[in-house]
Amino acid sequence: MIDVSEQKASNITWHQGAATRADRQRLLKQKGVTLWFTGLSASGKSTIAALVEKQLLDRGHLAYRLDGDNVRHGLNKNLAFSAEDRAENIRRIGEVAKLFTDAGLIVLVSFISPYKKDRDAVRALMPAGDFVEIYVKVSLETAACRDPKGLYKKAMAGEIKNFTGVDDPYEPPDRPEIVIDTETISPETAAKTVIDYLDRFTYLKSP
Amino acid sequence: MIDVSEQKASNITWHQGAATRADRQRLLKQKGVTLWFTGLSASGKSTIAALVEKQLLDRGHLAYRLDGDNVRHGLNKNLAFSAEDRAENIRRIGEVAKLFTDAGLIVLVSFISPYKKDRDAVRALMPAGDFVEIYVKVSLETAACRDPKGLYKKAMAGEIKNFTGVDDPYEPPDRPEIVIDTETISPETAAKTVIDYLDRFTYLKSP
Repeated sequence: MIDVSEQKASNITWHQGAATRADRQRLLKQKGVTLWFTGLSASGKSTIAALVEKQLLDRGHLAYRLDGDNVRHGLNKNLAFSAEDRAENIRRIGEVAKLFTDAGLIVLVSFISPYKKDRDAVRALMPAGDFVEIYVKVSLETAACRDPKGLYKKAMAGEIKNFTGVDDPYEPPDRPEIVIDTETISPETAAKTVIDYLDRFTYLKSP
Repeated sequence: MIDVSEQKASNITWHQGAATRADRQRLLKQKGVTLWFTGLSASGKSTIAALVEKQLLDRGHLAYRLDGDNVRHGLNKNLAFSAEDRAENIRRIGEVAKLFTDAGLIVLVSFISPYKKDRDAVRALMPAGDFVEIYVKVSLETAACRDPKGLYKKAMAGEIKNFTGVDDPYEPPDRPEIVIDTETISPETAAKTVIDYLDRFTYLKSP
């Protein structure tokens, strides 16, 4: 049997020697951050996030995307679309983004996240500088015209209820760190805007 | 306004060019994996996990711990200790561990996780080789004697209900990948056992 006094001493030792966020960031040569893309369906959030992720990896930085594909059918599969469940959906995503940021990653979060109070609650979870809100702006008309999944058409025909922009509100951010107007710039230029922001605010060190 | 046909073409391009788990693993020079530590309270799970994490970072590998400190008060703060909430607690942790593993990290998960079916459900979420179950074994007597937080004392006095090992069962794994008997080996030797496993099964490349 392990001597209890030794075990306690060992506990003290590992607490002092435990790995920190700073250790992980030094290894990764970057500062952890959550890039929170918000905007209407078909605004271009996921397209831009995927481009940013790829370009960061090509530069030797570790990025990871959280989106409907890997969250809605996993962590949040037991949530529906009531106001309460929507809030819980964003809350869980925010908590997971916080963990990834603490792990030192550049996390790209790409959900409509239509309500200001839900996004502000995520911002409030994190230290200043860890949460960067990116408003991917588009007019409803343009989004409905793009409609790659035919969702606007269904919503306007009443086949989908509580669809953001149609019969549920989208609340734009008051003071997002970055605004991308996808009616005037290409996804490639949008991605460059985001990476320039990360460079300018020294999230990225030279690998 | 962006031409819709161009937008679609661009979507196709980024899907083909999107970053993959293989890209992240190449950057990190490791294979993502969930190291799932299970065992009684005071068995030594967190102590060993913290040592493994530190030694991996010292070797240039990215590891991250999920434990009560960063999960119970965050992602899972809206869960209590009913059987249903305990299952949901482990389910969410499993889903988050899966995301971290997909991101290429070595995730060290350290919760009592007393029920076999909850742990097996997490294993079933992941591809073979992504989930490594580590049984941190200790007798109830030794754990109750260590009792660093005084929890066994309170449970035995009836001040805490449904405490694993006292009035709630602990179900040991049938076929864990690693067994660590903390009555016979030190935390340092235990950590070496885990790292040797990662080396042997080629989760770690030379940085």
